[in-house]
Formats: sequence, structure tokens, C-alpha cells
Amino acid sequence: MTSTLSPAIAAKLRASFADQAMMATLGAELVGIGPGTCEIAAPILPGATQQHGYGHAGLMFSIADSAMGVAALSLMPEDAEVLSIEVKINLLSPARAGRLIARGRVVRPGRRVMVVQGEVAELTDGTEKLIAILQGTMIPA
Amino acid sequence: MTSTLSPAIAAKLRASFADQAMMATLGAELVGIGPGTCEIAAPILPGATQQHGYGHAGLMFSIADSAMGVAALSLMPEDAEVLSIEVKINLLSPARAGRLIARGRVVRPGRRVMVVQGEVAELTDGTEKLIAILQGTMIPA
Amino acid sequence: MTSTLSPAIAAKLRASFADQAMMATLGAELVGIGPGTCEIAAPILPGATQQHGYGHAGLMFSIADSAMGVAALSLMPEDAEVLSIEVKINLLSPARAGRLIARGRVVRPGRRVMVVQGEVAELTDGTEKLIAILQGTMIPA
Amino acid sequence: MTSTLSPAIAAKLRASFADQAMMATLGAELVGIGPGTCEIAAPILPGATQQHGYGHAGLMFSIADSAMGVAALSLMPEDAEVLSIEVKINLLSPARAGRLIARGRVVRPGRRVMVVQGEVAELTDGTEKLIAILQGTMIPA
Repeated sequence: MTSTLSPAIAAKLRASFADQAMMATLGAELVGIGPGTCEIAAPILPGATQQHGYGHAGLMFSIADSAMGVAALSLMPEDAEVLSIEVKINLLSPARAGRLIARGRVVRPGRRVMVVQGEVAELTDGTEKLIAILQGTMIPA
Repeated sequence: MTSTLSPAIAAKLRASFADQAMMATLGAELVGIGPGTCEIAAPILPGATQQHGYGHAGLMFSIADSAMGVAALSLMPEDAEVLSIEVKINLLSPARAGRLIARGRVVRPGRRVMVVQGEVAELTDGTEKLIAILQGTMIPA
Repeated sequence: MTSTLSPAIAAKLRASFADQAMMATLGAELVGIGPGTCEIAAPILPGATQQHGYGHAGLMFSIADSAMGVAALSLMPEDAEVLSIEVKINLLSPARAGRLIARGRVVRPGRRVMVVQGEVAELTDGTEKLIAILQGTMIPA
Repeated sequence: MTSTLSPAIAAKLRASFADQAMMATLGAELVGIGPGTCEIAAPILPGATQQHGYGHAGLMFSIADSAMGVAALSLMPEDAEVLSIEVKINLLSPARAGRLIARGRVVRPGRRVMVVQGEVAELTDGTEKLIAILQGTMIPA
């Protein structure tokens, strides 16, 4: 992903992601950042499943929430932190296997409120299948 | 919690919870089940935090989603499984420490669609503080 | 409804409701206000229906959004205005006839963000049936 | 909008829209239908405003809900009807004047559940401004 982020903001986003212990627990990696966008990849670890062995809804939610948060943070002042205040997820299909890609993007930046969208796709043999879509609100903290 | 669940349904709910590896990863325990209700408790493990050391939004979401799912499952036919199709969470306050209690309840049971509500409270020194509220939809799978 | 609202705030809430032309179009009346609460009643007018003659989802949404907005406004400073930034509605049953009662209440007041819940019930022959539940966020404008 | 809808389905969609009295009350017109898509236009009538003279949130919600419903109906069997079971709206900017365009599209068709997205833009002097985004679930009724 070509990025026009300043080096200081890029470093801040990487540090913010690295400080989220939940991402390490889920095996998630930050794979792309840009102005108002973020992409996170994660496996479906055996410890992140629900009762049928599929990815738990909380797995998809967690990586997408982080992706939307980092996307929002990229457009905030350098000294700001970000907080999710509300997120809605629609789960389209079970996450059965393969690698998950969560993408966040800012739909409407704002000084007080940022509206974000997210999606989670499952990548199997080079083919992406959309498995969740999200819509939420982030505020500077 | 007094329960009028049949022993077969109670056993099914306990098994469904026990089979969710994500719950074990988060240290969550099933602490109450009833007809249309479920309560799950969890610590804020160091591996479930966000960048400021608070509980990750995905932690609150995960335990509340499971609580709402078990609550819905308690009112479904004995051979049915449950699937979250959409969930909305509003995060009221950061989860700083203490023990989290997630509660799910069925607002409207239905053969095709169950509407559920959830909440997450933080218990510190015997005092509960509400930190998240949720609203969602579960279907039999 | 017993109210401990100051006369100035009560007058402001009534004026805010009266200035919403959409409420008059829908035949809605403000029937109760209190600190952090509001109740609005409305008929299902022939001009507010969907294709099967039931109340349009937009009817239930509109009166509940106004009820949640007035509830939030009741806890804001006297010179503030209120703005809905996001609302989620789950529709439990069609609104077939009778009188609708929308209730809004503030779950978490805050200087920057207020989290609200709402419900719409249908009143027929003295019996209430819950037909929609809502969860949303209001900000001072 | 080029359409590959069958004449029977196109006629059914037009009739379904025409039967929604709420759309006539709001001055809304059906301006485009396609397989899984729908576009509705509406003015901001004086009777559809909130307390500051902007479009009421219920106006944007109503036309977008109808657009998402018609979009979902276009992919259902010819004898099916459609029902909104839940919708989330994020309001990005007040609707000040001009003409509103609501668009609905099906993100995931399904026999039991259809996941839809919507948006409302405000058209002023040939320029579109996005003012609301929506995400919801429709079922065949």
C-alpha cells in the first residue's frame, strides 16, 4: 500500500497496533496503513474459535475494530489517541479456515467524531470471500 | 440463578460454551443460565488489552456475544444450533481492571429470528459499573 | 410522569419537540418528559404506512429517535442543542394498528457523548406489545 | 440504470414502492431499480424537518430503508414479500437543503437473510455530499 502518511504518524500507528496485546493473542499482523485506511491479517487460531470450530464472532470483530481504530488514528492530530464508541457488525458467513483480512477506512473524518467502515474477508487459495461488514464511530481520546 | 431449564437443555448450553475455545483463551466462565438468559464472567487478561492497557473492545464484544448466543440457544429446539447474524455494541467506559460480567437476554424469541440484548459490567470491590450495551440478532443454524 | 426538570429545561424540551415538523406530520405528541427520559405517542396514520398497510419502519424510527433526542437534551446544558449521530433499530413485530408509544432514556450521560436506548410499543385495548428496540448515540451540537 | 430485472419483478418492485404511503407523504420517488439495487429521491419537505429546519433523521432513515427493502425484494422469489428486521444508520452531516438520493444494495443475498447497505447523499447544484450510511438485514416475509 502506497502511503502518504508522515513518518511520525506511521510510527505512531505501528506502535499503537503493537501495544494491543489482544492482536498478538489472536496472531494478528498489521499489513497496511495509509491515510484513513488500515489492513490487518490474522489466522483462525484454534484458541479463537466458537463451538463449531469456526472463527468466533469476537475474532472478526476484534481485528476489524483494531483496523478501523488505526484507520481513524491516522487522520487524528499527532498527540491524539483513539477510542471506539460504537460498532455494528453483520456476519455474512462463518469463517471456516484460511487467512482473515480485516480492512478499516474512514468514511467521514471529523474533529469530534470519525465515522468508519470495515470489512473482514477470508482468503483461501488466493480467493477472497467477504464474511463480515462493520460500521462504527471513533472519537479522539 | 434459579433455572427452569430442562436438564438436557442445560447440558447442551454448558457444552456449547465449553466448546468455544475463544472463551477459554479469554479466561471466561459460564456463571449463570436460565430460560432466555445467560451470564458469563471474565478477567481482563494481559493478553486481551488494547494499547492503553484497558480491555480491548473485542474482549467485551466476545463475552457478550457468547452470552447472547447461549441465551438464545436456551429457547431454541433441542437439536438446533445458534448463529449470530448481527450485533451492535456501544462502549460506555473503558474496562480498566476488575472482573467483567457479561449478560445476555432474549427480548423476542422467534422461530426464525431471535432478538437479544446484552450488557457488560465491570465489578470492582463489589460495585458494578456498566461499561457496554449490546443489541443483536441470532438465528437457529 | 413526575419530573424534577427545571422549568427552563422543561420549556426548552417542549419547544424542541414542537419545532420538529416531522412529529406533526406523523401526528406525534409529547406525552412525558423527565430527567433523561421522554415519551412520545403517535397513531399509525394512513400516510405513514408501508406496502402492507403496517406502520413504515421509518415511523417507528422517527418517533423513537425524537424520544431519545429529547431524553438526551434534558441532561445537556441549557444552551446546548442535540444531534443524533447513530441509531440502531431492531424491529420485533409489524405495527398493525392501535397507538404507538416511543420511549427514550439516557443510559450514559456524558459531556461529549450520550448513549441512549429506546423502545416502541403498540398499545391495543390497554395492552402493550413491544415492537421495536433501539440503541444510539447523541452529541451536543 | 440498465436493468436485467425481469418485467414481472420490475413491476412488483414498482408496485411495492407505490404501495408505501410513507413514501408519498415524504415526496419520495423511485428513480432506479436493478438486480440487488434501488435508488429513491426525495426533497426535504417542510413537514419532514427537525427542530433546526434540517431533514429529520427519520426522513433519511425512511427513504434509505425503503431503498434497501426494494433492493432486497429484487433478489427474492416472485411471490415473496420483504421485511426489515434491523437497520443501523450513521448520520454524517445535517441535510440542509437540496435533493436527497437514497441508494440501497444487497451485499449478501440469502434464502433466509439478506444483508444490505445503504447511503443517503444530498445533491446541491450538481454536487453530491454523503450524509448518511446504513447497514441492515432484510428477510422474506
